[in-house]
Amino acid sequence: MKTISSRDNSTVKEAASLQEKKYRDALGLFLVEGPNLVRELIQYGGRIRFIFLKAGAGEEAWEIARLAEGLTAVYELSEDAFFKIVPEKNSQGIVAVVEKKEIGTDDFFRAVGSANVLVLDRIQDPGNMGTLIRNAEAFGFGGVILVKGCADPYQPKVVRASAGSLLRMPLLQCGSPEIPELLKKAGKKTYGACMTGDTAARNADLKKDAAVIIGNEGNGISEELLSASERLYIPMAGKTESLNAAMAGTVIMYESMRQRSE
Amino acid sequence: MKTISSRDNSTVKEAASLQEKKYRDALGLFLVEGPNLVRELIQYGGRIRFIFLKAGAGEEAWEIARLAEGLTAVYELSEDAFFKIVPEKNSQGIVAVVEKKEIGTDDFFRAVGSANVLVLDRIQDPGNMGTLIRNAEAFGFGGVILVKGCADPYQPKVVRASAGSLLRMPLLQCGSPEIPELLKKAGKKTYGACMTGDTAARNADLKKDAAVIIGNEGNGISEELLSASERLYIPMAGKTESLNAAMAGTVIMYESMRQRSE
Repeated sequence: MKTISSRDNSTVKEAASLQEKKYRDALGLFLVEGPNLVRELIQYGGRIRFIFLKAGAGEEAWEIARLAEGLTAVYELSEDAFFKIVPEKNSQGIVAVVEKKEIGTDDFFRAVGSANVLVLDRIQDPGNMGTLIRNAEAFGFGGVILVKGCADPYQPKVVRASAGSLLRMPLLQCGSPEIPELLKKAGKKTYGACMTGDTAARNADLKKDAAVIIGNEGNGISEELLSASERLYIPMAGKTESLNAAMAGTVIMYESMRQRSE
Repeated sequence: MKTISSRDNSTVKEAASLQEKKYRDALGLFLVEGPNLVRELIQYGGRIRFIFLKAGAGEEAWEIARLAEGLTAVYELSEDAFFKIVPEKNSQGIVAVVEKKEIGTDDFFRAVGSANVLVLDRIQDPGNMGTLIRNAEAFGFGGVILVKGCADPYQPKVVRASAGSLLRMPLLQCGSPEIPELLKKAGKKTYGACMTGDTAARNADLKKDAAVIIGNEGNGISEELLSASERLYIPMAGKTESLNAAMAGTVIMYESMRQRSE
């Protein structure tokens, strides 16, 4: 295992730059941090460029680093250099630099098959985005479409909140105007989650070939997408105004799973 | 409207102390912050001791403060004094000091009637707790029991995440050993959410008189409570390990609402 002690090392500097979206975009790389996620990355066959291990990291991180040595370049970093890449006091001391898995429209829908698709329309909160991607996998959705204007799914907070699902789920990023046509061509019926919807989620046929759109935390789904969708609502009691985006999406995805297992 | 400019004023100091649990416990008071929540508090008839308005707060905060003047003491505070109570740069400039609504077991179950009850077993994350209380109201649950060891529901983060539901939902705090007996006496059938459950949530009768236990984020439900419960699971696909506590609770509460509206 090679060691790097300087925080000015060029490999370290490049990895650290991936905290910023512009460098993730330019380099096509992102960071995956922590023993659990790096282990999943190895198991899943993710394309890992480097793994960095912090001097003084715990046994679990070391074990995974040793496991990875046959597959990719592994560096042991001084605490100082590691902190430049992962500026967190409580880091468990392992981080991977990974190639984004860009996927085209055809490959995306081939991977999805007849499964449902989750469409995120300008979701801004990284925790909501990660949770929704995670729960899409949990409830058997085949892929996630990120409409232009969403937060960057490759930022560390989304990667963490998705708990590995981001590494496995097919993702497609595309502009809003193309989406209705795309979904139609793929044979998906389009539903938009909407407080003032017409159809209760339980009365919609969500078993398969459905696209479920979840809108921006403050403004909901864009008119453009909503007008091409059947509007779904979740019946509620009480004085609460609405579920938040992550909850609404999770409940509708659960409902689809429930319908399939009836 | 009286004004206070010193951060050393005794009323300001007492209000500021409510950021800490020990003072909330000792004084039986807590803070409710922001125009939306303070408005709900007024509408709902919450017992407000004081309202503090920040000099330079926006029109919405002023409007609510004027509305409240007939009901309670309202003080205009210097920015400095206000910041001592609400140490947040982006505060919208209004905060209320409110009496906790302590409720005994009999009153709690009288308020709940035949509705379902949510039981939180050592939930630690304030966001999870607030979300679960909010969604309990959204899906028609009648009250929330907080088992000893939970985070303090009166901390500002829970109040905020509950989006007002904390002000309206009957809450009962009690120790774990009493709970099975309490629920039995109240005629509630007890269910525990558990990855390795025996019954899929959709196959349990959750229409009414059910108590749904959600366990600690890391360790789940205590053995004591789990052994007195029918174990519910949420069917999932994919490689995700589990839903987080807030999601699992929300999905089961949705399921109960769905069953009632069939």
